[in-house]
Amino acid sequence: MEVSREQQAIREFADARDWGRFHTPKNLAMALAGEAGELLALFQWLTPEQSSEIMDTESADHVRDELADVFIYALRLSDVLDVDLGAAVASKLKKNASRYTVHDSFGNAEKR
Amino acid sequence: MEVSREQQAIREFADARDWGRFHTPKNLAMALAGEAGELLALFQWLTPEQSSEIMDTESADHVRDELADVFIYALRLSDVLDVDLGAAVASKLKKNASRYTVHDSFGNAEKR
Amino acid sequence: MEVSREQQAIREFADARDWGRFHTPKNLAMALAGEAGELLALFQWLTPEQSSEIMDTESADHVRDELADVFIYALRLSDVLDVDLGAAVASKLKKNASRYTVHDSFGNAEKR
Amino acid sequence: MEVSREQQAIREFADARDWGRFHTPKNLAMALAGEAGELLALFQWLTPEQSSEIMDTESADHVRDELADVFIYALRLSDVLDVDLGAAVASKLKKNASRYTVHDSFGNAEKR
Repeated sequence: MEVSREQQAIREFADARDWGRFHTPKNLAMALAGEAGELLALFQWLTPEQSSEIMDTESADHVRDELADVFIYALRLSDVLDVDLGAAVASKLKKNASRYTVHDSFGNAEKR
Repeated sequence: MEVSREQQAIREFADARDWGRFHTPKNLAMALAGEAGELLALFQWLTPEQSSEIMDTESADHVRDELADVFIYALRLSDVLDVDLGAAVASKLKKNASRYTVHDSFGNAEKR
Repeated sequence: MEVSREQQAIREFADARDWGRFHTPKNLAMALAGEAGELLALFQWLTPEQSSEIMDTESADHVRDELADVFIYALRLSDVLDVDLGAAVASKLKKNASRYTVHDSFGNAEKR
Repeated sequence: MEVSREQQAIREFADARDWGRFHTPKNLAMALAGEAGELLALFQWLTPEQSSEIMDTESADHVRDELADVFIYALRLSDVLDVDLGAAVASKLKKNASRYTVHDSFGNAEKR
């Protein structure tokens, strides 16, 4: 998947429906969090082990759809804010590498 | 940004720290929702107009970092679940196109 | 509404269905965040002004139900963790009062 | 804890800081979801068993504070919307009792 091509498809989808005025960054951040909440709900009563096998259950399509919704809103929000996602992800991974060194964080996911 | 390349970088980051056992789908869905919540908080007291100008304020780096965190966990979760993101997004956009026809949804973002 | 009485009703509801093993603190925190996401979604495309009039629209019952769901899970989580909610709220309001003094925060909701 | 008394204390806190214009229902729903996300993050890497013992760890105060934040915003949102929380919770519990009968839902928390 190439991010900029998807962003263009999503932009055209929104433009065709005149959704620009709904798609403020504030509203898109809300929609993104709402979809992340729907994804979360699919896992809420599962044991860790059950969660690892969710794609072998009848929830699989639902998971794919909710993951796609999260991506779609995150791509749209980045586009509206004119954030270069590739650069943002690269920069954050670099920060994470110095914040969570292999030495300090081996086997330990504690937030720093 | 090419999604599969980022996923590989994130996987190597996690593997180097032996984080596999923390990265169950359930836990990653939680981390994703948590990051979506942090992104949301940056917008919570802004007017719609202020939200459109957030990248011209001192919150800009924070927004880029939180968006990156959302992406990183969404990419990681898709990788762990072995979901083909490109296919999932394409399939969801197709569903949306028939659910939200231009005819019914022009100027109207109501959820269906 | 008296909090401890509601907590007891919710506990009896869960016990009658043998839901204790699902109601770990981790799972309840997920359910709470999921319900907060559903509440959020009711507001996502509204202007600030429309959001102030939501109880005069056909969304009113939906808002009441989602707010109730948030409360029910928050009450249940507090009960399972044996947290004294009255004390926790009083202590947090006290912290907020010194963190957000009237002097510094008058007309300014910026997070500290 | 008596809900209406807490709501009044929170209202006075907000009024003293002239926060009324920030506290639209839309913004409060965002703040609530953001705090639910912070609470969630405290549990994200814990096993179910570890989550049950979180109040015996150094995260205990943090849990109490985040739970209080969730309550404070939920109480404030209900107050601003003039929703009778006791009635809303009672009505939702009644709906849940017929949706999740003991017969169908014993030992089964599946969402209906």
